[in-house]
Amino acid sequence: MLGIQLDKGKGQPLRRQLYQAIKERIERGALEQGEALPSTRELAAALSLSRNTVCEAYDMLLTEGYTVSRSGAPTRVAAGIKRDQSPISRFETAAVMPEEKLILADFRTGKPDLRQFPTYTWQQMVHQAAAVLDRTGMGYSGPQGLPELRTELAAWLFRSRGMSVNPEDIFITSGATFGIHLAAAMLCADGGEILGEDPCHTGMRMAFQSRGCRVHPVPVDEQGLRTELLSPGVGIRGIYVTPSHQFPLGGIMPAARRAALIRYADAQNAYIIEDDYDSEFRYWGEPVAPIYTMAPDRVIYIGTFSKLTFPALRVGYAIVPASLQRNWTRQRTFTDVQNPILEQAALAVFLKTRKLDRHGKKMRRIYGERRMVLTDSLKEAFGDACRIWGDGAGLHLAAEFPGRRFDGVFVETCRQAGILLTSAEYHAIEKGRHENKLLLGYGHLTPEEIRTGVGELKNFISLK
Amino acid sequence: MLGIQLDKGKGQPLRRQLYQAIKERIERGALEQGEALPSTRELAAALSLSRNTVCEAYDMLLTEGYTVSRSGAPTRVAAGIKRDQSPISRFETAAVMPEEKLILADFRTGKPDLRQFPTYTWQQMVHQAAAVLDRTGMGYSGPQGLPELRTELAAWLFRSRGMSVNPEDIFITSGATFGIHLAAAMLCADGGEILGEDPCHTGMRMAFQSRGCRVHPVPVDEQGLRTELLSPGVGIRGIYVTPSHQFPLGGIMPAARRAALIRYADAQNAYIIEDDYDSEFRYWGEPVAPIYTMAPDRVIYIGTFSKLTFPALRVGYAIVPASLQRNWTRQRTFTDVQNPILEQAALAVFLKTRKLDRHGKKMRRIYGERRMVLTDSLKEAFGDACRIWGDGAGLHLAAEFPGRRFDGVFVETCRQAGILLTSAEYHAIEKGRHENKLLLGYGHLTPEEIRTGVGELKNFISLK
Repeated sequence: MLGIQLDKGKGQPLRRQLYQAIKERIERGALEQGEALPSTRELAAALSLSRNTVCEAYDMLLTEGYTVSRSGAPTRVAAGIKRDQSPISRFETAAVMPEEKLILADFRTGKPDLRQFPTYTWQQMVHQAAAVLDRTGMGYSGPQGLPELRTELAAWLFRSRGMSVNPEDIFITSGATFGIHLAAAMLCADGGEILGEDPCHTGMRMAFQSRGCRVHPVPVDEQGLRTELLSPGVGIRGIYVTPSHQFPLGGIMPAARRAALIRYADAQNAYIIEDDYDSEFRYWGEPVAPIYTMAPDRVIYIGTFSKLTFPALRVGYAIVPASLQRNWTRQRTFTDVQNPILEQAALAVFLKTRKLDRHGKKMRRIYGERRMVLTDSLKEAFGDACRIWGDGAGLHLAAEFPGRRFDGVFVETCRQAGILLTSAEYHAIEKGRHENKLLLGYGHLTPEEIRTGVGELKNFISLK
Repeated sequence: MLGIQLDKGKGQPLRRQLYQAIKERIERGALEQGEALPSTRELAAALSLSRNTVCEAYDMLLTEGYTVSRSGAPTRVAAGIKRDQSPISRFETAAVMPEEKLILADFRTGKPDLRQFPTYTWQQMVHQAAAVLDRTGMGYSGPQGLPELRTELAAWLFRSRGMSVNPEDIFITSGATFGIHLAAAMLCADGGEILGEDPCHTGMRMAFQSRGCRVHPVPVDEQGLRTELLSPGVGIRGIYVTPSHQFPLGGIMPAARRAALIRYADAQNAYIIEDDYDSEFRYWGEPVAPIYTMAPDRVIYIGTFSKLTFPALRVGYAIVPASLQRNWTRQRTFTDVQNPILEQAALAVFLKTRKLDRHGKKMRRIYGERRMVLTDSLKEAFGDACRIWGDGAGLHLAAEFPGRRFDGVFVETCRQAGILLTSAEYHAIEKGRHENKLLLGYGHLTPEEIRTGVGELKNFISLK
């Protein structure tokens, strides 16, 4: 009856199957407006169902307005339901899985060595944090982030970077990108311009642009952003910089430029967005003091735990000037409300027990050794044909090959040959100035993988 | 010497204290450009430090460009560092802690009963998920969300709501607000209008507006959005609806209106943003079938786990039409990259073992009983003076008191008397139409708390 066939082994209740079958017929017009449905008794008999099942299905249809019913009269199809258009198939854009490749060398940037992460310790922290989660923590606990974590973070910033920060000025984020997103939302709500280093991390630039900011390039050299090129302008809301280890070229901005940058921001009434993405891994001296410490009222300081722990943790932080804190809270509330509680609580324990300090110390040693292996291998393989930029900190460096030109085609050809890397040019805003530089991420590679990788790269560069 | 005093018990290395003391003097101009620093030997003697400590501090200053040094000559302060402006105090807006209040009745909406959540089971899920987290999961695992979770979610949507959804169309979010944020980013990138129910959840309306959408109100009645009031317009990109349980008035949209809404969206080439925020708690029949099932190509379906688990989990999902999936992925990547991995993995286990189904079933029973207690108490306390709206589902209802007027002052006076509630008027876009309705959230209250609360409310309303 009605052409309906139910599947008793389908794992979905029969009343629901029946409801859906009738609903679907009403929607496509097979059962027309005003048409009477069979009585529950008839339909139950025809489909070998209990009458109760049919009644339940009919009740659902009635509740949702697919049918109308007056007492004593048969149930009829309600008016105005049939849809004219046939729906577009949702499966048109099925994802094409990329072919599995033999990777000879993976020099991609921004990858910490997850093999070294103390997984077991982390599991204990999570377990500990989950066990003490109370009802308050399970509810909405506020857009600024868990107070315990902010307190531990302030203590950690003091002992690891010499930063004196009030926990009340720290705002937990879901990572650095999200910090940029919120900064952009605040600074460029009604349009406006951000000055950005050129070259500059493409993902971060996109984060600004996707939130409505125009990004105007300012060239960098081996000391980061060339502050002497800054000129007064209208509508400049922020300057996005990576002064501790410029991404991607690795310059460390000297104090005079930092001071010039602050004076410029003061004069323009703009904010400095300081992205300190990997300065915890610095291979000589102590971590460079952030610009934030020089001008806390002018700087939105963006930090991340993606390098020190693991990217899928999704916890970062921002230190936000008092003048922007209300707006930050507001933007966060209407974007994603707050971070999940569990990672925040576990990270607080990780910091409090200083186990994260120990992990960081260990990784700085390991990454430092790898950096040496990479610079040595490059010197051995290329000699004077290769000049190294920005190896003072972080997990990557830039290798300049004067006279060579590495374009998108080169990078793609490399990829097809199993050598994964990016060019500095990829991150350039104004194209054509950095075509002779390759970016080599090494943090996630063992010394052996680095040596092999440089060998492969040499073969490939010579072949070209 | 230099007026520097170090604190050996401070817990911060002496070299860093020294470095900071000198740096701070350079920044404020107490040590001027070109001025020679004391020799390391002199300073070490004056401060009773090892010479090595002083050398390390000097090295840090040199590395960061605070000083310049030529071999044989004394270290001098670098040029151009002193800052003109004195920094604004960051502590001007210290948070004022709200006074602790005696709460007599907490009728706020949107609060699940966290006391009933199976915390121990959840801890086991988290533990299990953390233990099997591999290196792949710890890296960037993609903006769409964990495949295992999407598979389990599709199975759960099928068995709990009769929805047939391809896991490839599911996009994990950090909660419903974030789903709205991304939808707004896609639909109103270059301006444009969203039609919204009036009244409509203020937070959700703000999420649209903070992402650049204008929200145009369409009145609702007891059956949700009044589709007969929809008229063709220019630049209408989306219609935001809560058809399964209209927030805040609780109407369930009948099928004919759903069909009319789809036809309207088809004609306007607009998308329906269907926010299904609490339909899992429905007290008669089965959950209402979402509009999504009628027109998957026209609907962005927004789901959340905040009610079924707990808000601080921050996991929701969206079912996104194929035509928007690429853009969704892009927007997500440049906003916050992806969800953390742990909650996703734990939730997948929670769904797979069907323990979440059991919890949901239990809570539906409990919330259903509370709903009865509340409606009975209201009838007893107010009789015909109170008319109940929208108690067919969810964790709140609206109580209309014909002839009364509940404005912001009333709500604030209630709050000061220890009765927390909101008015329907608070969520109204066009003011003045819903002043006689109060919203009463009851999900998180025990029967006893509900009875007491209604008693308090009665006293208060009579007193007024």
